[in-house]
Amino acid sequence: MERPGGRTARVRAAVLRAAGDVLAEQGFAHLDLSDLARRADVGKTTVYRRWGTVTAVVTDLLAEMAAESLPRTETGSLLGDLRANARLVRATLTDPRQGPLFAAVIAAATCDDATARALRTFYATRIAEWAPCVTQAVARGEVPEGTDAGEVIRAVSAPLYYRLLTGAGDLGEEVADRAAEAAAAAARAGVFAAGAAGGINTASGAR
Amino acid sequence: MERPGGRTARVRAAVLRAAGDVLAEQGFAHLDLSDLARRADVGKTTVYRRWGTVTAVVTDLLAEMAAESLPRTETGSLLGDLRANARLVRATLTDPRQGPLFAAVIAAATCDDATARALRTFYATRIAEWAPCVTQAVARGEVPEGTDAGEVIRAVSAPLYYRLLTGAGDLGEEVADRAAEAAAAAARAGVFAAGAAGGINTASGAR
Repeated sequence: MERPGGRTARVRAAVLRAAGDVLAEQGFAHLDLSDLARRADVGKTTVYRRWGTVTAVVTDLLAEMAAESLPRTETGSLLGDLRANARLVRATLTDPRQGPLFAAVIAAATCDDATARALRTFYATRIAEWAPCVTQAVARGEVPEGTDAGEVIRAVSAPLYYRLLTGAGDLGEEVADRAAEAAAAAARAGVFAAGAAGGINTASGAR
Repeated sequence: MERPGGRTARVRAAVLRAAGDVLAEQGFAHLDLSDLARRADVGKTTVYRRWGTVTAVVTDLLAEMAAESLPRTETGSLLGDLRANARLVRATLTDPRQGPLFAAVIAAATCDDATARALRTFYATRIAEWAPCVTQAVARGEVPEGTDAGEVIRAVSAPLYYRLLTGAGDLGEEVADRAAEAAAAAARAGVFAAGAAGGINTASGAR
């Protein structure tokens, strides 16, 4: 006899792994609960009862990915921290499984509100994890008071996702380093400080 | 009697408008040549003979959008030029028709190579149009020699597309202005100059 928690966790892991496989190999449109049950070797009834919709599976997958994403690196400088972050994002987006998976989820989010919400929650978790590297840089005097941590972290990710999604060139490590350097330079210049860009500071770190 | 050129151009305009409508309202998956013919009030045979595939219609639509996109603004300063560019990108992405249309084409490009190629061509055209604002800034001594024009222009667009696609907050005008300021600050700091970011300069302006 096995504890129910163990079996539940195993079922979840198997179904989410199957969902990740389908997303990475075929895209969101090919997700199907019965197919996931078959691939995960789990009863169809269990899958329908536990998740009910394909979007619920994707939401759960993103929650798992957010929970399992690597903790923040602390290097002692803003540029060092942002570079570590950029390289982590780059490693994810160039991973043969994770890259297509993210592209598929982002594509699905363009036409599915629940997936879009799950994606926003994923990024909010990630940004909350990395935001302290900016608040520490403020405390060290590297960047101005009032620098918006979330905006700095997003500025690091944006060029990497842009490249992934618009196909503008390879995603080499030097692209990650340049994204970090650009975000750090802009942060040092006060671009992300409250009052910059027309005096409106719209973004909070946890959004 | 009408000149054949006139009719051909009218057919193209009607079919591309119908394709844009479907993309903006329903997404790539709902594009169908027979349906486009009906919406455009054009013979099905004409549409099949002229385009043949849905992807060919999207490629043609992107070519038309690239040809019709507004010419570059010249303000006399890099920041002014980049701000004009950022506001143009922002206006496109927040347009009720163009925003969903771009999201749909980018989503389609994640799983369709021909659409991905068409999208790359669209961005290459746009970047070639705006690259001179960086080369002029180099000539004025605003940014270092060897600054990669394409990378600067992409740095302006990236945060706006990232926000569109990951749902990270609104796309207000202050977001566009901040994207321009961040790119200009990074360019002035030499981040996009040859030799920066590990000594490798991978991106050319026309890519």
